Amino acid sequence: MELKSIVEGIERSDTRSVARAISIVETESLHVERNLIIKSIYPKTGHAGIIGITGPPGIGKSTMIGNLCKILSSKKIKVSVLAVDASSPFSGGSLLGNRIRMQENLSRYGVFMRSLANRGLNGGLSRAVWDAVDILDAAGNDFIIVETVGAGQADLDIVNLADTVIVVLGPGLGDQIQAIKAGIMEIGHIFVVNKIDREGSFIAIKDLEETLAFSTQGEWKIPVYGTNSLTTEGYDDLIRGIMDHSELAKSSMEFRKKRYREEMRIVMQDEVSRILNRKFKDMILNGSELEKLLESKTDPYSAARKILKGSTVKL
Amino acid sequence: MELKSIVEGIERSDTRSVARAISIVETESLHVERNLIIKSIYPKTGHAGIIGITGPPGIGKSTMIGNLCKILSSKKIKVSVLAVDASSPFSGGSLLGNRIRMQENLSRYGVFMRSLANRGLNGGLSRAVWDAVDILDAAGNDFIIVETVGAGQADLDIVNLADTVIVVLGPGLGDQIQAIKAGIMEIGHIFVVNKIDREGSFIAIKDLEETLAFSTQGEWKIPVYGTNSLTTEGYDDLIRGIMDHSELAKSSMEFRKKRYREEMRIVMQDEVSRILNRKFKDMILNGSELEKLLESKTDPYSAARKILKGSTVKL
Repeated sequence: MELKSIVEGIERSDTRSVARAISIVETESLHVERNLIIKSIYPKTGHAGIIGITGPPGIGKSTMIGNLCKILSSKKIKVSVLAVDASSPFSGGSLLGNRIRMQENLSRYGVFMRSLANRGLNGGLSRAVWDAVDILDAAGNDFIIVETVGAGQADLDIVNLADTVIVVLGPGLGDQIQAIKAGIMEIGHIFVVNKIDREGSFIAIKDLEETLAFSTQGEWKIPVYGTNSLTTEGYDDLIRGIMDHSELAKSSMEFRKKRYREEMRIVMQDEVSRILNRKFKDMILNGSELEKLLESKTDPYSAARKILKGSTVKL
Repeated sequence: MELKSIVEGIERSDTRSVARAISIVETESLHVERNLIIKSIYPKTGHAGIIGITGPPGIGKSTMIGNLCKILSSKKIKVSVLAVDASSPFSGGSLLGNRIRMQENLSRYGVFMRSLANRGLNGGLSRAVWDAVDILDAAGNDFIIVETVGAGQADLDIVNLADTVIVVLGPGLGDQIQAIKAGIMEIGHIFVVNKIDREGSFIAIKDLEETLAFSTQGEWKIPVYGTNSLTTEGYDDLIRGIMDHSELAKSSMEFRKKRYREEMRIVMQDEVSRILNRKFKDMILNGSELEKLLESKTDPYSAARKILKGSTVKL
């Protein structure tokens, strides 16, 4: 597939072209192709509402996304899903099965879904996730749902990428209260207590509402919804909340600016890392500092400073 | 506490000094103090055997570490433990409880234990983990056990840091076979099937042995041990395996060289990131490229290249 036909395919929402483009942005060595694709499609971006969904593992995020996609699709709203997975060799097997089931489920409603192995800085959201969102945006999606797995920095970074962040918690808050204290309160625009058929969910909602009572995100008053993913109870309210917040976020120039700044920061860091990694390789492999280190005549920080000091890098 | 007394404290194995030094290397803003500490203690490093323990969550790694520490301590072998945790706000609560229990358990045998939030590049092992290992090494430990949680790139990166990598798996391999295929086979020097009282453990050991039959790590033939953490069955063999491999690794110049190279790479990347982040901030915040991006007159990659092109960074 030629780049030109991939770009044209994205613009007419062709699933194969979208999938191919995402594979390209995931492949480090194809950075020239990636730059061309993003450059070509970028003027078409800016339409989609980007919804981040985060919460602890096993809380029912995937099922919730399935329900949201089913309801949105039935209203002729075009939605795609990106699942951002931690890249441990141990999570491979079980996660893969889960993702295949999710994909099969979503394809029934004509929803495109892709899982991305996250290899971002600090375990945060990687550049490829931003690129994939741009591609899905240019492909004419009304909403792009980005799920993070609840196992790394990406769970907090999602606030930089998404217009609307939904934090999904469970009935027995307990340990999750720690998460709320650890910065989750600051990133959530919408809170959901899932599995409201379970014991303790009424109290969990009340607790959350009290905790959030004095929290606002600008002019937005943070709501708490209860959902039951089996009966889809509570989903109408949740979807109304998503729509309302998405509208508000889109109209905020401040938010857009913050988002572009973050995207540029990630792209620049990525670009510089690539250049420096090449340069480092020579510096370290051919350096006399390594020999000194082996003979315990220096330490890594002194060695690094000696190599770096005075050297200039042309970017 | 003054730096000088911290360094002296480390060298006479004072727990408070060690703990304080690790806190310092974990604090980004204290990089000057960190450099001084590492420089001062570095000549004392190189004695400890570094044991990495990795495997899927819930497989009993913490309990196994407790048993190993108990047995090693009873033989007057000095051992400390670093637990490298993924830094999600959601894992905070439950993990914290687990770590406190682990700490209480280990302190009964006089074993120092510390958990580190991992914020490394690509979710891999961060510089602070390497620094903490250096500190514990200088403090006169015979062995330093580094546990990764089975939820990120750190699970693979451990092979760069540890002399001996132990991969812990469970009786019903199933999904774990995926992990073995996904690169775990290449990093493990010792494989353990834990919970051998459970059904399927005999087959799991046989399966692993067959899979590993033609694998060696240099002159080392990779063993598979079965353990029961309740009865400590199998621990004698495991500890003999650890000792044997540790001796072998220590004598390998090639391995030491690889390790120093990796440490320098991480330290240099860290140093350069710090310098560039400062520089980036100005570049992005004051740039006209951001305005162009907001007006959709450019894309992030073109903007980044324009800013970076021709600019030189003095390191």
